[in-house]
Amino acid sequence: MERKIFKKLVSMEDALKILYSHYTPKPLGIEEVPLERALNRVLAEDVYSDVDVPPFDRATVDGFAVIASDTFHAHENRPVTLRYGGTVDAGKVPKIKVVPGVAVEIGTGAVIPKGANAVVMVEHTSREGDFVKIYRSVAPGHNIQFAGSDVMKGEFVLRKNTILTPHEIGVLAAVGIAKVKVYRKPKIALISTGDEIAEPGETLEYGKIYDINRFTITSHLIEDGAEPTFIGVARDNPDEISSLIKKGLEVADVVISSGSTSAGVRDILYNLINKLGKPGILVHGIKTKPGKPTIIALLNGKPFFGLPGYPTSALMIYKSIVSPIIRKLSGYPTIKRRKSVKAIIKSPIYAETGKTNLVPVSLIYDSKGQLIAFPTPGGSGSIMKLANADGYIKIPETINFLEENSEVEVFLFSEDFEPPDLFIIGSHCLGLDLILSLMIRRNPNLKFRVVNTGSYGGLMSVLRDEADLAGMHILDEKTNEYNIPVIKHLKVEEKVVFVKGYIRRQGLVVQKGNPKGIKSIEDLLRDDVSFINRISGSGTRILLDILLKKIALEKNIPFNELIKKIDGYHVEVRTHNAVGAAVKSGKFDVGLAIEPIAHMYELEFIPITNEYYDFVISKSRFEKEAIQQFLEVLKSEEFQKTLSKSLPGLKPYEDTGRIINLI
Amino acid sequence: MERKIFKKLVSMEDALKILYSHYTPKPLGIEEVPLERALNRVLAEDVYSDVDVPPFDRATVDGFAVIASDTFHAHENRPVTLRYGGTVDAGKVPKIKVVPGVAVEIGTGAVIPKGANAVVMVEHTSREGDFVKIYRSVAPGHNIQFAGSDVMKGEFVLRKNTILTPHEIGVLAAVGIAKVKVYRKPKIALISTGDEIAEPGETLEYGKIYDINRFTITSHLIEDGAEPTFIGVARDNPDEISSLIKKGLEVADVVISSGSTSAGVRDILYNLINKLGKPGILVHGIKTKPGKPTIIALLNGKPFFGLPGYPTSALMIYKSIVSPIIRKLSGYPTIKRRKSVKAIIKSPIYAETGKTNLVPVSLIYDSKGQLIAFPTPGGSGSIMKLANADGYIKIPETINFLEENSEVEVFLFSEDFEPPDLFIIGSHCLGLDLILSLMIRRNPNLKFRVVNTGSYGGLMSVLRDEADLAGMHILDEKTNEYNIPVIKHLKVEEKVVFVKGYIRRQGLVVQKGNPKGIKSIEDLLRDDVSFINRISGSGTRILLDILLKKIALEKNIPFNELIKKIDGYHVEVRTHNAVGAAVKSGKFDVGLAIEPIAHMYELEFIPITNEYYDFVISKSRFEKEAIQQFLEVLKSEEFQKTLSKSLPGLKPYEDTGRIINLI
Repeated sequence: MERKIFKKLVSMEDALKILYSHYTPKPLGIEEVPLERALNRVLAEDVYSDVDVPPFDRATVDGFAVIASDTFHAHENRPVTLRYGGTVDAGKVPKIKVVPGVAVEIGTGAVIPKGANAVVMVEHTSREGDFVKIYRSVAPGHNIQFAGSDVMKGEFVLRKNTILTPHEIGVLAAVGIAKVKVYRKPKIALISTGDEIAEPGETLEYGKIYDINRFTITSHLIEDGAEPTFIGVARDNPDEISSLIKKGLEVADVVISSGSTSAGVRDILYNLINKLGKPGILVHGIKTKPGKPTIIALLNGKPFFGLPGYPTSALMIYKSIVSPIIRKLSGYPTIKRRKSVKAIIKSPIYAETGKTNLVPVSLIYDSKGQLIAFPTPGGSGSIMKLANADGYIKIPETINFLEENSEVEVFLFSEDFEPPDLFIIGSHCLGLDLILSLMIRRNPNLKFRVVNTGSYGGLMSVLRDEADLAGMHILDEKTNEYNIPVIKHLKVEEKVVFVKGYIRRQGLVVQKGNPKGIKSIEDLLRDDVSFINRISGSGTRILLDILLKKIALEKNIPFNELIKKIDGYHVEVRTHNAVGAAVKSGKFDVGLAIEPIAHMYELEFIPITNEYYDFVISKSRFEKEAIQQFLEVLKSEEFQKTLSKSLPGLKPYEDTGRIINLI
Repeated sequence: MERKIFKKLVSMEDALKILYSHYTPKPLGIEEVPLERALNRVLAEDVYSDVDVPPFDRATVDGFAVIASDTFHAHENRPVTLRYGGTVDAGKVPKIKVVPGVAVEIGTGAVIPKGANAVVMVEHTSREGDFVKIYRSVAPGHNIQFAGSDVMKGEFVLRKNTILTPHEIGVLAAVGIAKVKVYRKPKIALISTGDEIAEPGETLEYGKIYDINRFTITSHLIEDGAEPTFIGVARDNPDEISSLIKKGLEVADVVISSGSTSAGVRDILYNLINKLGKPGILVHGIKTKPGKPTIIALLNGKPFFGLPGYPTSALMIYKSIVSPIIRKLSGYPTIKRRKSVKAIIKSPIYAETGKTNLVPVSLIYDSKGQLIAFPTPGGSGSIMKLANADGYIKIPETINFLEENSEVEVFLFSEDFEPPDLFIIGSHCLGLDLILSLMIRRNPNLKFRVVNTGSYGGLMSVLRDEADLAGMHILDEKTNEYNIPVIKHLKVEEKVVFVKGYIRRQGLVVQKGNPKGIKSIEDLLRDDVSFINRISGSGTRILLDILLKKIALEKNIPFNELIKKIDGYHVEVRTHNAVGAAVKSGKFDVGLAIEPIAHMYELEFIPITNEYYDFVISKSRFEKEAIQQFLEVLKSEEFQKTLSKSLPGLKPYEDTGRIINLI
């Protein structure tokens, strides 16, 4: 297998320029749709009204149609008496004519009868048999909406390229338009490629992964006003790929594939794509990270985009390169536009130079209403990296470093993005999940984002003003105390509010029946035992390392040598659940986790220690409503009663919810 | 016809309380949909992962899988040499085992072969026949994404009640879910009532109006996650209304009607609704303005809402009372929530006490980024009042007056509301429309809102910091000068930037052939001539009145007596187009309008005068990008060349676009 290096990389901007020099994206045609199906479509013509709105002079109140001058002398205590001249109802053509001295009863919306030039509200009249007393004078035109006063026949009402919201639909109905000319939706063919791709719902063979891009890109295409069609999965062989792209070109206006962009398969793609149409491949790769192996081609007038396989990479290239083109085809760009927001980063971001770095970020408002961007953790293969992101930032080729407190432009994945009410970064705990569930029960509108980075990462995020709140359980080796020593050591007592949480029992989780006979941490050193570790910086990892250091000391072995004896020490996961699931599946014999995990995954639990799981809150955000709601639930009887019951091994105590003054 | 006064009016809050005491809106059931159709649906269950993501340890780069300790001594200038052990491709199950001293070539995403615990990037290697040179050391775990490190089997991934955006769709695909449980959409039956209702597309009989509510409410129901069905139009007779409501109750979860809420027909509605189910009518009317005649009933477990007929009233009652209930049925309320924004009003708003006043407003940002709310002009029967509104404010029952500069909460009609880039309130001109068209051509993303209130209203709006810009043409009687005298008279020279516009020819427009032989303004006094006027405060109206005052003086008749001789003096329209359309239709013989109107509507034009049409711009907003773009276009050759050509009677001159210092 000979590897081809991507020689002709171009910048993102140049990639688009090259395509635009051959191709101008614009709406592809016009179709007529009934008004009831026109919502969110894009108007393809200027609309003038063919009718007057309202189409006749109409009464705007219930009352009496009169000749205004007949009422000029009317007063509360000196009414004018007119003759009752009959009734006009809405929807009827009045046959009555109003002559001097006559008042005709009229309903709201009814046609003003001939002769009348004003309406007196019913509240200012009293009917007495054949006569009507008028208690207030009216000026000519009063309580009449004149024909065409809202929209006149021939008037310009809606501009071409307007997106049809309920308002515009209302205007079109008002002027009597039942069918409306809109741009037809661009048809986009979608192909997934790669030998490893399996369809969701299928049982996964070893070595295969589920197709994600098909669904994320389809969803974004729908949001961009297009009509996506999934053509199929092509294995990594030229005939299959070629035939699916051909099929796509037949049925669609644009073809998008994802995957198969690794160096080996790319050579195949290059060759076959150039055979499918002229001018062929325009861009062989883009100077972005991620997204480098992106291919752009134009095949007999139809664009082809070959996106990378990794979901985050595929989506960011879709959003930054493909989406603007699709929106032009839909006729969307002139309207939906909140594509980016400004935000501040609170920790430096390092980037690879010579490439545009695309970095997914989570957004949160701080207490001053300033938007903060936080790069979501995980590699470009991670779907959670994407799931936790509201958008991404672009770091230009020439920059390899963004300082903390830099302002960045965040390109949004979704226009109706809304930062969460509570952004929790830190140690994962099922007790914390319970607090969030109870908060949701009290206020179903709350939105949370929880990013599991471990205790230390959470504390740092709170200190950098990224997170609202962090759960933490960091044991201090010297004092054997939890959490407070590390805060004092960092000298950040004044920056945080420290709130006592609850007690958790930590221990080893092993399969039912404890087949390997594991009793203590020391058993991790055994050759026949495999262990699943937590990420460094997590409280559980810190606890593990303290326990291992004690063993190292006892055994007089350097710590670094000791851990080499542990099969799996370097296999790190983010959450307690992940530990439970891994042991349950039999892939690992043992992990260190909190007790409820053992119950949840039907595992056996070997208690090791009790620990204090506490919360640090950013002092500047302490007044935030969601934080106050959090504290209320933490202190509530409801939570304290439920905790041990639903999560054995977790328990509240007298200090739960108490704010500790650290200064 | 006996009129029933709405005796049992309740407040908006109480109306909902009464309904909620009988009825709890919540999702109505669960259905399973394929992932490709799940976008924007609401998740009906907590989702845990049944698989690990990734499902196996995989390479995150192209390179060589190795045992990390084999590379520990590798350096750029002192590579370690390993034996080439074959290749592993993505999607294949590796049959090779890596033993000490061996490196196996591996593609991104491929399964890490047994024995290996790290991957060296291809860039840091060189293959030489059967050997591979390694130039950098790697630690255990390097360039490997471990099975389950993203999502572990058994892990909690998505919370019930989450709205499924492309992100969540991606997460579901990643964990292999092909079908997802979502709440079924609530079915809503929609009925329009009233003898006057015609369907768009039909020719309008005299006395009828097109159905608007059917389309606006349908569109809003779709946005609220419901499935609307239009049941039909019921004439104002009990059998027809009754049978349509019955049909609605059979097929839907909620029935909404609009119209037929005027006092007379309401009695019919009351009686028949109470026969259709228990407990029957709960609310007979609401203390709101508009929206008073709203009916709320519960008919054997299904809510019925009788909305007013006027589109603005119907929609505001829908948004404030019905929509929150529909969203609870859809399962939406927990997510889409940007329902309101804070804004400042720049002129006082008067309200009717004893009712909640609902006032539609337009929103615009001022130069400081402050959101300003401007009540849209027009009565509750006006569709343009609604079309120009971004939302509405609620003035509580007890308040009859909101001071200028009050902060108000604006309830948005649409969550992805976006204020216009340029808010123009003032005199309507086709030349101004041309400038906007040219601006759009240069920057298709621009969004405008133009509200035609006439010259004086526009100037006032700019002074109150509501509008960005106003077009004006106000003749001063004494000096015979345009625009500057009124600004000086108001002593507001320092608050505005005054920009010279262009010259417009004003004149009388009459039907082709001038059948009435009209020659001058004096002909308006003739008995056989009907005239269509412009709204007071408009420059054209001011011009007309100045001309009429001269005639009054000559004839020695008081002005107020003189205008009584003009048939139609009190029929006022907002725009020049409206004048043209009215004369074209034959409803009026003559109007005063700018010359291009005559061409546009194929009318005859009798020149009266040349006038200066200029612009005032809020000084504090002068730096706004859209205003600068406006001035650029005004000064451009493109505009000045196009103006007279496309709009005969309008012409630029040497001062066009010049900023005049008034101080």
